Amino acid sequence: MGAGKTKRMPRAVREQQMLDAAVRVFGRRGYMAASMDEIAELAGVSKPLVYLYLNSKDDLFTACIRREARALTEAVRAGVRPGLSADGQLWSGLRAFFTHTARDPDAWRVLHLHARTHGERFAAEVAAMREEIVAFVTQLIAAAARDAHRDPHLPEREVAGLAEALVGAAESLADWAGATEGVTARQAAATLMNFAWAGLGDLMAGRPWSEPEDAGPELPAQAAG
Amino acid sequence: MGAGKTKRMPRAVREQQMLDAAVRVFGRRGYMAASMDEIAELAGVSKPLVYLYLNSKDDLFTACIRREARALTEAVRAGVRPGLSADGQLWSGLRAFFTHTARDPDAWRVLHLHARTHGERFAAEVAAMREEIVAFVTQLIAAAARDAHRDPHLPEREVAGLAEALVGAAESLADWAGATEGVTARQAAATLMNFAWAGLGDLMAGRPWSEPEDAGPELPAQAAG
Repeated sequence: MGAGKTKRMPRAVREQQMLDAAVRVFGRRGYMAASMDEIAELAGVSKPLVYLYLNSKDDLFTACIRREARALTEAVRAGVRPGLSADGQLWSGLRAFFTHTARDPDAWRVLHLHARTHGERFAAEVAAMREEIVAFVTQLIAAAARDAHRDPHLPEREVAGLAEALVGAAESLADWAGATEGVTARQAAATLMNFAWAGLGDLMAGRPWSEPEDAGPELPAQAAG
Repeated sequence: MGAGKTKRMPRAVREQQMLDAAVRVFGRRGYMAASMDEIAELAGVSKPLVYLYLNSKDDLFTACIRREARALTEAVRAGVRPGLSADGQLWSGLRAFFTHTARDPDAWRVLHLHARTHGERFAAEVAAMREEIVAFVTQLIAAAARDAHRDPHLPEREVAGLAEALVGAAESLADWAGATEGVTARQAAATLMNFAWAGLGDLMAGRPWSEPEDAGPELPAQAAG
């Protein structure tokens, strides 16, 4: 931004190299243990240049979170192709999500582990990304439900809850796939489809789950609503 | 522990009062903003007594996490009654979970938000609780799948993934229910049953979700597995 005309491209390129290196180091070591020396060395630049361009360890970490949050959100949006059936959309979106998190496990660790472990400021950056993804998934579920039956049986709040459940399940499975040897992106996506689709699918077709007869005594109305 | 015979009961009781107050204050203010003055005042004791009994703000926070993690795990275990059908067990366990998190939102915020936002040491305490709950849910799903069809079609890894998905969805919905006016524990549990049960149920009956024909081109085998 502040650099002169002839320097603009090299600076932008170098900044991306610094961010690449920072995501690697933050992802593997965590925020506290990550050293600016290691980041500079991995980026092939001097440490003062990292400070000149990105100001502080805090600002560098924030820049990593923002860049990776945008990349993940864009990967998911690009993965969901509007022409597909509802389960085709979900399947392609989930594969895009798990492929992205599997390809760059350091970036996923920055977003879903380290950014939430080092203070409210970083956590708020990730919360904003999560809200955007939940809103996107909410729209998809609402559209699929409308298509499935003209009479919109699914109240808005129920759709919002389903989107939260889906996003929470996907986050949890991405952590698990990253920590479990040999689980591929495709398997993680298929597990979530197995878990979720027939449930969502039945619901959209107007066949909600119904309470089993042996479910035991009611909880008090006040607590259970 | 170290106190004399006649002091043992009062100390244990007072410690619980201090922890009650600390969970309130940590839950509402977060770890950094919580003050030991406010905790002592709310507990009705002097600040030096809090330090005498619980040593430091760090140790007090750790004691809160441990107590609340145990309470949550026990509530879920107690909620799942072994005599029920598989969906009856899931429904009763989920109601127990959401009732517990709705009754004590400060405790849930300590466990699921603040404990993970202030350093690896606290995060590790919560991770241990989560692993225990995932292991418990894994056992339940495996047992239900065995009951549903003698031939165990569900590989161990798939069951572990389903348990991760279920726990992640439940965590996400508990946050959402806590932040959304008027969502009851029962509604949150029913949303998760709607989302998950028919999916899990079909799977256990040997009817997995199958890929739609319009799902688009394959991802490269290396990335997608």
